[in-house]
Amino acid sequence: MKLMEEKILSDGKVLPGNILRVGGFLNQQIDTDFISKAAEYCAELYKNDRVTKVLTIEASGIPLATLIAFYLGVNEVVVKKHASSNLSDNLYTAEIASFTHSNVYTAVVDKEYIKKNDRILIVDDFLACGNAIRGLMKIIDQAGAELAGCVAAIEKGFQGGGDSLRAEGIRVESLAIIESMDEEKITFRKQ
Amino acid sequence: MKLMEEKILSDGKVLPGNILRVGGFLNQQIDTDFISKAAEYCAELYKNDRVTKVLTIEASGIPLATLIAFYLGVNEVVVKKHASSNLSDNLYTAEIASFTHSNVYTAVVDKEYIKKNDRILIVDDFLACGNAIRGLMKIIDQAGAELAGCVAAIEKGFQGGGDSLRAEGIRVESLAIIESMDEEKITFRKQ
Repeated sequence: MKLMEEKILSDGKVLPGNILRVGGFLNQQIDTDFISKAAEYCAELYKNDRVTKVLTIEASGIPLATLIAFYLGVNEVVVKKHASSNLSDNLYTAEIASFTHSNVYTAVVDKEYIKKNDRILIVDDFLACGNAIRGLMKIIDQAGAELAGCVAAIEKGFQGGGDSLRAEGIRVESLAIIESMDEEKITFRKQ
Repeated sequence: MKLMEEKILSDGKVLPGNILRVGGFLNQQIDTDFISKAAEYCAELYKNDRVTKVLTIEASGIPLATLIAFYLGVNEVVVKKHASSNLSDNLYTAEIASFTHSNVYTAVVDKEYIKKNDRILIVDDFLACGNAIRGLMKIIDQAGAELAGCVAAIEKGFQGGGDSLRAEGIRVESLAIIESMDEEKITFRKQ
């Protein structure tokens, strides 16, 4: 999606440690006009794919996931990063290592919200090593549901997570794939 | 909003400890059709109030906030519950006590995303004691911005947070106000 590449170039900032700061439009401040266009584009990609639910993990992918679910006309399920008192104890769980926060957490979701006959679209803001997506796939497997594919707003291609999923035959759609980046220059993969 | 009261009665569940479980449609699984209608209703309430931004705090109010921002045609800002490597150090902060998680955390948001000339609508899924809203108000104050008002999907009226804000002249719109609840019965305030 040309628009996402242009937005990253105009509003993003690369920091030391392979961090791309896009908080100004994607996940801290949400540029509603831009993100709703991105969501509409993603929904279009999957509109004939019998998606029954959008699945994301809290918190920074939620705005995009909410709007994709809105355009697809399906429900959204948000996997929690921690158990809490308002969850039941009837849970699917998966261990996930976080690149951004350098820790491991247990993702949880109530078994009520993912069923055997669901066909799931996973949505996240970033795809780097693919840990979050693989965690969500484990949850989909536990539920006996089907994976339609994945959407990431931004894929860090050089970290390999997206290509390793594609090599396994999984549909991965990223609105921009960064092949390399440093504080001077961001290079995108031609799609 | 009659629809929200009906939804709570049909899909909600009261647990011991004053916990209302509404994960099936509001904040774990999002009933997109229902929540987008609720968001459109909220946007209508504030459409002539010169709102420039919707402000929420991660994570469970984000879907509603995203859709209200969408219907108002303004950007959304998500306050983080913890600092992380993809935030700058140019932050507004506020200490907030969590009713659900029984802890105190430091909410943070980049100063870039709230400006002096912003007029802010605060959105959250629950309003109980009002701690989260008061934390967000402290951040709005630090920025020198203006508060247009607050929206909560569900207010626990018996915990007093909403009425104490109203007593200070703050506009608080809750889609349902629960006066009392136990495992047998939920009673709403007439609005």
